[in-house]
Amino acid sequence: MKPSKLSTPEIQTALEPLSGWSHSDMGISKTFSFSSYGAGVAFAVQVALLAEKTDHHPDALTIAYKKVTVTYITHSAGGVTALDLEAAKTLSSL
Amino acid sequence: MKPSKLSTPEIQTALEPLSGWSHSDMGISKTFSFSSYGAGVAFAVQVALLAEKTDHHPDALTIAYKKVTVTYITHSAGGVTALDLEAAKTLSSL
Amino acid sequence: MKPSKLSTPEIQTALEPLSGWSHSDMGISKTFSFSSYGAGVAFAVQVALLAEKTDHHPDALTIAYKKVTVTYITHSAGGVTALDLEAAKTLSSL
Amino acid sequence: MKPSKLSTPEIQTALEPLSGWSHSDMGISKTFSFSSYGAGVAFAVQVALLAEKTDHHPDALTIAYKKVTVTYITHSAGGVTALDLEAAKTLSSL
Repeated sequence: MKPSKLSTPEIQTALEPLSGWSHSDMGISKTFSFSSYGAGVAFAVQVALLAEKTDHHPDALTIAYKKVTVTYITHSAGGVTALDLEAAKTLSSL
Repeated sequence: MKPSKLSTPEIQTALEPLSGWSHSDMGISKTFSFSSYGAGVAFAVQVALLAEKTDHHPDALTIAYKKVTVTYITHSAGGVTALDLEAAKTLSSL
Repeated sequence: MKPSKLSTPEIQTALEPLSGWSHSDMGISKTFSFSSYGAGVAFAVQVALLAEKTDHHPDALTIAYKKVTVTYITHSAGGVTALDLEAAKTLSSL
Repeated sequence: MKPSKLSTPEIQTALEPLSGWSHSDMGISKTFSFSSYGAGVAFAVQVALLAEKTDHHPDALTIAYKKVTVTYITHSAGGVTALDLEAAKTLSSL
């Protein structure tokens, strides 16, 4: 069964315990800050490995010097699904 | 000596032999397409390694599924410099 | 069903069309050469992404300057299985 | 000036404050353990980025599931130099 699009309140409730995630029409996203370029790139690689492992990929994964921004949305569902929230939860625990 | 900001004609002339690069106020950028997520991520890692090697980092390096977009600008010079064009040339030859 | 250990002739027949792989008690392995350190690291990252995607990881993945050596064996089967040969085939096609 | 080979006592004294490094004819090496494959690969990428940044590369960087082993030696000096110890110190602080 494919995951279905969640409502805004559902998404907000799920993001509440996680710090730094925001929600918009583009999906859910968070910018992570690092002490060095290398640490940020290493984190981005870990996000990419998780994506391949779970077969759920960020809509965008951007390295801008020491900041890495990750955005998730499930295009096939037309919005944010449980898969996106699961990925957010995992990243927040890395 | 720090590199100085180049003029738009200088930038355009330098980008001419390279394919797919465009120039705007945000700097110079190109989107590379790959046959798999893994190939794109591997390319992004190579861009990051080059950045550390040359001590010149992309302003943004974005992995959006099988597409990787790279943008260079030299903020300290307030525009695109020879360092950005050098990086563009290197990426186009990878 | 778990994959079962293959015989030496089966492994050799499967490796024949692939170039550069060798077989020993340690499993199957190949050393890939690259023109730069960055290219080798990028390849290693691609191998790691494939490992997470297929949930089958190299026994060892070694970056020694411009050479990357990959070894596969399926410890749970006590030898080389179809999963290892599948990975070898994929790497040889990257 | 090229770095010169250090004596065994010099190397041992330098490694003392760092945990887990050992010294042999192959150079200095340490095996780092991680809680996941992804975390280990991310660490290995950070080691590779540091290598490009400092232009001093590990003799070998091996990912064996959740363990990453790094070995440094300066072949041009015929042994372990201050560059290798500097890299060891940096890795231990990541």
